[in-house]
Amino acid sequence: MAVNIAPIGVLHPVPGVRLACAAASIKAHRNPNPAAAERSDLVVLALAAGTTVAGVFTQSHFRAAPVLLCQQALADAHTPISALVINSGNANAATGDLGLANARTVCAAVGAELVAEGAVLPFSTGVIGEHLPVERMCLALDGLSNSLGEDRWLSAAKAIMTTDTVPKALSRQLDFNGTTITITGMAKGSGMICPDMATMLSFIACDAPVAGPLLQQLCGRIADRSFNRVTVDGDTSTNDSFVLLATGVAAIPAIERDDDPRAAMLESALTEVAVDLAQRIARDGEGATRFVTINVQGGASAADCLAVARTLAHSPLLKTAIFAGDPNWGRLCMAIGRAPAMVNAEQVDLWLASAAGRICVAREGMVASDYVEERASAIMAEAELEIDVTLGSSAHAETLWTCDFSYDYVKINAEYRT
Amino acid sequence: MAVNIAPIGVLHPVPGVRLACAAASIKAHRNPNPAAAERSDLVVLALAAGTTVAGVFTQSHFRAAPVLLCQQALADAHTPISALVINSGNANAATGDLGLANARTVCAAVGAELVAEGAVLPFSTGVIGEHLPVERMCLALDGLSNSLGEDRWLSAAKAIMTTDTVPKALSRQLDFNGTTITITGMAKGSGMICPDMATMLSFIACDAPVAGPLLQQLCGRIADRSFNRVTVDGDTSTNDSFVLLATGVAAIPAIERDDDPRAAMLESALTEVAVDLAQRIARDGEGATRFVTINVQGGASAADCLAVARTLAHSPLLKTAIFAGDPNWGRLCMAIGRAPAMVNAEQVDLWLASAAGRICVAREGMVASDYVEERASAIMAEAELEIDVTLGSSAHAETLWTCDFSYDYVKINAEYRT
Repeated sequence: MAVNIAPIGVLHPVPGVRLACAAASIKAHRNPNPAAAERSDLVVLALAAGTTVAGVFTQSHFRAAPVLLCQQALADAHTPISALVINSGNANAATGDLGLANARTVCAAVGAELVAEGAVLPFSTGVIGEHLPVERMCLALDGLSNSLGEDRWLSAAKAIMTTDTVPKALSRQLDFNGTTITITGMAKGSGMICPDMATMLSFIACDAPVAGPLLQQLCGRIADRSFNRVTVDGDTSTNDSFVLLATGVAAIPAIERDDDPRAAMLESALTEVAVDLAQRIARDGEGATRFVTINVQGGASAADCLAVARTLAHSPLLKTAIFAGDPNWGRLCMAIGRAPAMVNAEQVDLWLASAAGRICVAREGMVASDYVEERASAIMAEAELEIDVTLGSSAHAETLWTCDFSYDYVKINAEYRT
Repeated sequence: MAVNIAPIGVLHPVPGVRLACAAASIKAHRNPNPAAAERSDLVVLALAAGTTVAGVFTQSHFRAAPVLLCQQALADAHTPISALVINSGNANAATGDLGLANARTVCAAVGAELVAEGAVLPFSTGVIGEHLPVERMCLALDGLSNSLGEDRWLSAAKAIMTTDTVPKALSRQLDFNGTTITITGMAKGSGMICPDMATMLSFIACDAPVAGPLLQQLCGRIADRSFNRVTVDGDTSTNDSFVLLATGVAAIPAIERDDDPRAAMLESALTEVAVDLAQRIARDGEGATRFVTINVQGGASAADCLAVARTLAHSPLLKTAIFAGDPNWGRLCMAIGRAPAMVNAEQVDLWLASAAGRICVAREGMVASDYVEERASAIMAEAELEIDVTLGSSAHAETLWTCDFSYDYVKINAEYRT
């Protein structure tokens, strides 16, 4: 049911990143269908020596074991990172010390298989509260180095899916004085999406040489403008991770400072890829039938604009009305009314827009005198909607992307473990 | 689909409160079914002279016109209140100055009809953003004083319903040294329920003589222990109002101070009625198939316990798992993980309980060694569930009541205006 997801297009290899996938029956072992056992659920990214790595992670109190290990490894600027290992089907969260030990075992198996020095970063996504099937995973990793290739991004994007209905990946290329820089990224996520500093799982690699501290700065800023601006259900995951890789294989001088003009170009292109991936997550939100952009402007602060946008994006009443295509804009007032922000109802203007047109539904807190419900209904019938909220006259503005709330969201999550 | 709602039982008249209902086709005028036009949607409560009135109201930025007028009238301690007028079908919210004028017109019509001195308080519930059909309402009020009676509580509880599937009302009697004191209350609410200082609409009357300032204190404390501890969907209404009436008709000396032992007895009985009505709202939550009590204890503060309870009660992923009867306790960890509270995952214990038993699912943040999924499934199959969360060893504790999230919640709210 994904809403208007553009084709992935060509996924350019990123020199310095080799990928391989394997099937470890991590979740499928409960599935009576033998075909399920053949689905890839384990991905390794082997990184060229000298690759810099930056990451932002979930702020959950219940951070999963792999998140804790990644944060530890990245906190030590002197540890080179040689590989990432990602599994779907099991989140390795709420698993205590055994969970940490299991993740370390899997990382060690990857290190041994690749004969690489440097740390291996683990990532997991799937059911919370079950222990990793370490033995099956190590067995699946055995010999994996033989199948590493730079052209495996699409297979990898498929292997990390859980309730996603489509894989999510994207490439962009930049020209730096005649040298082509390649950016390729992938993401997974469909439910439990309300990233707090990061999203479920997303990995974006480029072959530019970027100094570690600068890459970490870019990573935080990019997450804030992309994954931190998308929500499906307001439920933040225990495993959210967004990782930026810079292999440095491209033959250009290192980018080390924020004021290097190439840093701005790279940040802009990386942000474009991240925003696109983030929007794909909302478009593929569990049960989604509509993709919604919420713009809030004129608040007392940017934080207030964001708080209003988030409250709208999380209101079950508004999301079910959007599912129905019902311009029940009273629910916009209701949700704005309960937002943790400074709001003067008498200054609030509300607009609905889509390919079918644009209409002012409320001006200064009450129904607009020229509002025509039939026109609003026609606008709401589209699969892509925009809700514009003006809180006042300031220059602050925020945008958030989300989806509606349908029968299928309930169905998918009522049946998730069966 | 209401979950285990006890019969209302006898509703005792409260001496000093006379009620009447009328049909004004407030919402029904759009309904092609002629029977809909005959449904009562307007209620008047005429109060004996000397009745004290206290109220708490929604904290929404988009407070409805009737809420603003009630707050104004109650702020002036010298204004006697002679009547309440309540309509369903239209919230008179986001209606600007015309909304205020319309509410005043309806109040004036009630005042004229009752030939009563003192203010009339207006209350509205229903669709947001439409103007009241004042003419039809005034017409319906004409002659209503002839049908006033002390025994109309059940009809009134029915007339104020919107998406409620059952009327909600309750009586209790107290003995004060041989004098019987009667408490009778009613409430409506099923969706848009996350009261913030009050609930959708609830009116509880007693015939004890209670001084105004004391009644207001009781009102705030009682709301905090009842309506402010229930949530259906986290969506706070623009019209939430909880009103406490004390007619003073009972022949006992006035209760004026908090340290009067009768004040404690009265507060306890009023709280019991309010908690019961609040629970009826969650039991009749839109689409509810299960009633859930969430107990959180041992947090760094009572506010932290409440924040964790609220995050659990609002998590779409947890609520859909409860609908499915799936003991997917990883979603408890996820929701606790994103709660705005101090939480150390390694100290968290989780229990599930119902009439079918009680089981520890997680101890110190990870799956309990003696956890058996089959037992947890049997516990979750019941219509009444308890989720117990221990965050640490402090004495702080909070309880919240809520319901699950089903297909029917989506259906009811997708079709609400049609």
